[in-house]
Amino acid sequence: MNTAIFGAGRIGKIHAGNLVRQPGVTLKVVVDPDAASASALAAQHGATTGTIDGVFADASIRAVVIASSTDTHADLIERAAAAGKAVFCEKPVDLSLARARDCAAAVKRAGIACLIGFQRRHDPTFAAAHARLVAGEIGDAEMLIVTSRDPGAPPVEYLKRSGGIFKDMLIHDFDIFRWILDDDAATVYATGSVLTDPAVGGVGDVDCTAVTIRTKKGRLGVINTTRRAAYGYDQRFEVIGAKGMLQAGNHRPTEVVSSTAQSVSADKPEHFFLERYQRAYANEMAHFFDALAKGTPIRTGIDDGVKALQLAEAATTSWREKRIVEL
Amino acid sequence: MNTAIFGAGRIGKIHAGNLVRQPGVTLKVVVDPDAASASALAAQHGATTGTIDGVFADASIRAVVIASSTDTHADLIERAAAAGKAVFCEKPVDLSLARARDCAAAVKRAGIACLIGFQRRHDPTFAAAHARLVAGEIGDAEMLIVTSRDPGAPPVEYLKRSGGIFKDMLIHDFDIFRWILDDDAATVYATGSVLTDPAVGGVGDVDCTAVTIRTKKGRLGVINTTRRAAYGYDQRFEVIGAKGMLQAGNHRPTEVVSSTAQSVSADKPEHFFLERYQRAYANEMAHFFDALAKGTPIRTGIDDGVKALQLAEAATTSWREKRIVEL
Amino acid sequence: MNTAIFGAGRIGKIHAGNLVRQPGVTLKVVVDPDAASASALAAQHGATTGTIDGVFADASIRAVVIASSTDTHADLIERAAAAGKAVFCEKPVDLSLARARDCAAAVKRAGIACLIGFQRRHDPTFAAAHARLVAGEIGDAEMLIVTSRDPGAPPVEYLKRSGGIFKDMLIHDFDIFRWILDDDAATVYATGSVLTDPAVGGVGDVDCTAVTIRTKKGRLGVINTTRRAAYGYDQRFEVIGAKGMLQAGNHRPTEVVSSTAQSVSADKPEHFFLERYQRAYANEMAHFFDALAKGTPIRTGIDDGVKALQLAEAATTSWREKRIVEL
Amino acid sequence: MNTAIFGAGRIGKIHAGNLVRQPGVTLKVVVDPDAASASALAAQHGATTGTIDGVFADASIRAVVIASSTDTHADLIERAAAAGKAVFCEKPVDLSLARARDCAAAVKRAGIACLIGFQRRHDPTFAAAHARLVAGEIGDAEMLIVTSRDPGAPPVEYLKRSGGIFKDMLIHDFDIFRWILDDDAATVYATGSVLTDPAVGGVGDVDCTAVTIRTKKGRLGVINTTRRAAYGYDQRFEVIGAKGMLQAGNHRPTEVVSSTAQSVSADKPEHFFLERYQRAYANEMAHFFDALAKGTPIRTGIDDGVKALQLAEAATTSWREKRIVEL
Repeated sequence: MNTAIFGAGRIGKIHAGNLVRQPGVTLKVVVDPDAASASALAAQHGATTGTIDGVFADASIRAVVIASSTDTHADLIERAAAAGKAVFCEKPVDLSLARARDCAAAVKRAGIACLIGFQRRHDPTFAAAHARLVAGEIGDAEMLIVTSRDPGAPPVEYLKRSGGIFKDMLIHDFDIFRWILDDDAATVYATGSVLTDPAVGGVGDVDCTAVTIRTKKGRLGVINTTRRAAYGYDQRFEVIGAKGMLQAGNHRPTEVVSSTAQSVSADKPEHFFLERYQRAYANEMAHFFDALAKGTPIRTGIDDGVKALQLAEAATTSWREKRIVEL
Repeated sequence: MNTAIFGAGRIGKIHAGNLVRQPGVTLKVVVDPDAASASALAAQHGATTGTIDGVFADASIRAVVIASSTDTHADLIERAAAAGKAVFCEKPVDLSLARARDCAAAVKRAGIACLIGFQRRHDPTFAAAHARLVAGEIGDAEMLIVTSRDPGAPPVEYLKRSGGIFKDMLIHDFDIFRWILDDDAATVYATGSVLTDPAVGGVGDVDCTAVTIRTKKGRLGVINTTRRAAYGYDQRFEVIGAKGMLQAGNHRPTEVVSSTAQSVSADKPEHFFLERYQRAYANEMAHFFDALAKGTPIRTGIDDGVKALQLAEAATTSWREKRIVEL
Repeated sequence: MNTAIFGAGRIGKIHAGNLVRQPGVTLKVVVDPDAASASALAAQHGATTGTIDGVFADASIRAVVIASSTDTHADLIERAAAAGKAVFCEKPVDLSLARARDCAAAVKRAGIACLIGFQRRHDPTFAAAHARLVAGEIGDAEMLIVTSRDPGAPPVEYLKRSGGIFKDMLIHDFDIFRWILDDDAATVYATGSVLTDPAVGGVGDVDCTAVTIRTKKGRLGVINTTRRAAYGYDQRFEVIGAKGMLQAGNHRPTEVVSSTAQSVSADKPEHFFLERYQRAYANEMAHFFDALAKGTPIRTGIDDGVKALQLAEAATTSWREKRIVEL
Repeated sequence: MNTAIFGAGRIGKIHAGNLVRQPGVTLKVVVDPDAASASALAAQHGATTGTIDGVFADASIRAVVIASSTDTHADLIERAAAAGKAVFCEKPVDLSLARARDCAAAVKRAGIACLIGFQRRHDPTFAAAHARLVAGEIGDAEMLIVTSRDPGAPPVEYLKRSGGIFKDMLIHDFDIFRWILDDDAATVYATGSVLTDPAVGGVGDVDCTAVTIRTKKGRLGVINTTRRAAYGYDQRFEVIGAKGMLQAGNHRPTEVVSSTAQSVSADKPEHFFLERYQRAYANEMAHFFDALAKGTPIRTGIDDGVKALQLAEAATTSWREKRIVEL
């Protein structure tokens, strides 16, 4: 199966590397406004460089990977829908909920397969915790605590175009919430602060947040985040049910423990998302082509993208207007 | 130094046992409406039984331990203040914030020493985490996550008279919040659910909660609780600062690890508060008499009792009225 | 029940403190060649000071605790046997195996109760691991790995009179071996080195050892020790059976974990034996008086003391003569 | 660079998969007496099948991977040396120490690069522990404890041709010993037992062992192994120095922790060597081609293969003849 990728940056390289390992899948075209990046990635995988129009005009290309900047996602999804090509798209669908909904409608009308890149669901630890929850190990989920912390804030220039912390960073956590608690949000309360760098506040954003979601069945989801965990990328959740608790913990680079006169110390968590979610990205890509080949459902479709965005928007409103938002 | 204790129940026995181990301290009188309990505890420690009036009329008694039912605390504190006796009182001061404030005023007028029993501050793990925070190990505290879960709900009869989960159970967590974040609350948001037993809802209470407190400096405190953690008493907190994180974890009865074909398993946490906080209760009593002897400040005074109650009341209001409460 | 204690040093104080907490037990006399130590300990517990002869002549004293120097143990045990008094004696029985056997014979002839102080069997973690092994959790024990490391070597003056590392330090580990593998040793191989301080070699001793014991049933026991674990007192064992493994780990002073830019670090193990085995010593004393009161067997009798000494002697021979010793 | 692989079995597939990922490296020929296996593996990687003679006659092939049965290793190494091709050979060099030494001589005469497959040195955890030891984190190594346990014994037919547990299984541990303690063995003592299956004894082998090695500098190395760890593949070591201890622990498939009314449980270790050492095998292959490309030394050369075998032979003798073997 021939494929094309939009975006040859950091995440594009990851996806291209995973894509070419899928049996029977060929990366035919790489598209990126930066010609050097596109050429380098194309050369690495025996592909050619091309244009957006060229890709959508090429009937031999049956699937596209969208790893370009956020503001291009919606257009590319809609064009892929129009061209009848399967889509693997990085999160988010769009920063506008209305636009994301339009995309979802286009995808459904066209009947194309579409995966939105919530790769955490494919992380070995997160996926195992979910599977054991579904298998009934702790009974029904009642409460979920999500800890999601980055090792450091991105540049302020990035933050300006990011859509804010709730759409940029917590979008993943909202998807985890939906996946684990398996219920619709009834109310969302979000608060946040600028504690790490005043420049974050200068662009109308916050760098740490606490979000509480109450579901229609009365289940409770609590998310805490910060842009700056000095000790690294901290990605955990714990879910409590009537029969116990499942905790999904961090991964460490090695299992070395050092005992000295000072302390007993172990590795910090994997540095950041490229390291922690390396296997998740690989699993996600394999899942996509496996589902395409078998015609089975894709685990995180465009509706999941829309619903996570809806929660991000509700949280943004709650924080800005200092009120509880009902959904 | 002669002392008396009010209350010969579960917690009264703990306090009496710790009291008699203090050098130079004698338990002279035990008071309890249940004569058999009073006699048994008095006999165990070579004390006599007595009455409230008798204790306050006995000039040789210089300190009293109040471990009787919650509705007696305020009266006994006020009488102790009037009699000029030092007070060691179990939490809470009272279920009414107004009444608690009256007590605080009485204590201050009388100039008596008064300790309110937030024993968690004396837990070796919690105290070490606090000391290391204060010593600057992770910089200023920015965010606090408190996990506080009981192994099972008390009888509904108890719940009716408990003042509700925020005053009964989270009062300790509000004190931890004040101690660790060291800042005043600006807003409180609380939500909760009845997930374990409908009878809890029948008496107008909830059995699990999520509380978010934003402080005046913008620090964030998040508390999650449940009355039913099937795996036992789960008492942890983690505090994040600019330079890292300090986590205060559970204690286990033993350090045995079993590896079998199924899993690698360790002990559950200590069963409940009497086990987990055994050393905390002992340290707390030693601190009380040490402070009395040296005339040094008591770590958790009546103002701490009042302020934790104020937060509990704000949380109760937030939950009942489904709104963010400003303080 | 009236009792006396011989020895008011470090371990004597521990035992005295535990002894006076036993219901119905009174510490009547403290004996120590150092009059000031004896007086101080006696005063602390409301006892008087006395002499060895006085204690054995006092018919009201029914049990003695021997916590004096090693070279006095055998005499005191024999005198206690002659006087018909129960004995709680610190390890070892004696540095001479022949003399220890004489003591054992005297104890048996007299029919007195006698506990030899292998307190590790009363440690909560070690005792739980043993109980679970006996309950069949991992099937029959096949292999045992004992890690036993001190935080630092004692003064060379102490080492000279210690009987050597095998009798002084590993005697506890030989008892653990007998307790856990529950089989007689067939062969012993021991080697050791002076790696920490040449002075240790100067007095004909070693400071780290590796000992392998093969039992009559073919089970394997391996012990590794060092006098200097820079990170503290390291006391662990793991036992493997057909169905799995049980590990008995170290205890830590607190459960604080610190995550910083450097590492994730936890407390070192409890500093040394007085801290790690605080509860073990208390449990051991309670067991002694409980067994006396009920007439039930004592968990570590004089034969256990003799047999651990026999293994220590075999190990010493193996190390000195560089050969495998058969028993 | 063109390459060939001998052996298309379990480990051959692993190596082939890693080989084709090296930049600039092509797998040209697959050789295996089983034609179907050879064809399948060749097809998977776009190679052809061939013969031993064909490979050595093909001047375009510059390196060979030897992943065939142990009894073919020495011949193939010698033929590669004669043909001037670089060698990547699975352990062991041979079951005969004399033959292995001949191979080493041939390799040296020919001046070819030769890697012997002690992949554990490339495991992220083991490699990090070694690097930190070398960097001086705990001072000089003084004592090493190696735990090396398989999840289950191989079929007795395999054991017959395996060379015995010391050459088959502990050969890796002897290499770890040499790598970590960085000193020559002075004495070896080995004992073992048949505890899991009498059939193991029937072919003159044992299924669990304890080995003690004393080095020329007096350092102590202790290895404990069993063929049957019911809980999985247990691969750890700990090294003690004057300033502390470094422990290299097991890897787990996920970081899920489950807390229930029974216990707090985590994953068992990775199932077996293919899982645990997946990254080690990949790193090892990358190291081989990187060293070839740069002309830098190979981490584990044929001398390492010979020396580990020498220790295995000494251990076998010690066990069989029940004596301490001096080297």
